[in-house]
Amino acid sequence: MKSVIEGVEVQDLRIIPTEGGPVLHMLRADSPLFRSFGELYFSEVEPGHIKAWKRHSRQTQHFAVPVGMLKIVLYDDRADSTSRGTVMELVLGRPEEYRLLCIPPRVWYGFTALGDQSALICNCTDIPHDPNEGERRPLDTDEIPYHW
Amino acid sequence: MKSVIEGVEVQDLRIIPTEGGPVLHMLRADSPLFRSFGELYFSEVEPGHIKAWKRHSRQTQHFAVPVGMLKIVLYDDRADSTSRGTVMELVLGRPEEYRLLCIPPRVWYGFTALGDQSALICNCTDIPHDPNEGERRPLDTDEIPYHW
Repeated sequence: MKSVIEGVEVQDLRIIPTEGGPVLHMLRADSPLFRSFGELYFSEVEPGHIKAWKRHSRQTQHFAVPVGMLKIVLYDDRADSTSRGTVMELVLGRPEEYRLLCIPPRVWYGFTALGDQSALICNCTDIPHDPNEGERRPLDTDEIPYHW
Repeated sequence: MKSVIEGVEVQDLRIIPTEGGPVLHMLRADSPLFRSFGELYFSEVEPGHIKAWKRHSRQTQHFAVPVGMLKIVLYDDRADSTSRGTVMELVLGRPEEYRLLCIPPRVWYGFTALGDQSALICNCTDIPHDPNEGERRPLDTDEIPYHW
């Protein structure tokens, strides 16, 4: 799958059928998409809720969605980006859309669960969580050309 | 929670209530339990199935269970261990049993889902998967004093 925002990467991930339940790949230290290990955490998104907007000044996100279906929207307003002004929408979830999504610093993102089940995001970041490097905007901000 | 097998570590993890769904901690690079980043993957365990037994010669496991309830059993037959011969049984899952479990190399482990929902294990290992360093024994081996 091609990315339309500079620095955003999307990689198909393998689901390995196994007796008793599948094994789902996510990220290896020898992957070209791996940078460094900062923190690993989950964010659950309940049906009918939207978590938006957020961006980081230094942190790179590695997202996979092993449970549920997630719609995620990215927006690039970086002054120095070749894709400035671009909105990118994608779906993450098993089985067809099981992918690794890398979101670089300074790209806005927001997400919501599709369907009636919660979606679980696993995020493996390149730096440990620092509350001072995250920034938020309200869902309905005029500064991002996307309507949830 | 105290561990009874030498080198096994168990740490309570935080669940942070958040509008739209909780954030679940798992592992940070500055945690005393972090060693190095090797690979991040998921293993799903369907109800009624048991995945056992397995051990690694070099790889350390960091397990958390963000979805479902897992019963996990560990067995130590390391000749050089102070806890040789010990069986350890624990439950991992939200909310009361949401914990990080570190399983060192050479300790046997097996697990099954509790209840009627699949359990999802997230494993963050200290080396990338190497098919040559894992070893298996059948569920009903006489060499491990545990009956599933």
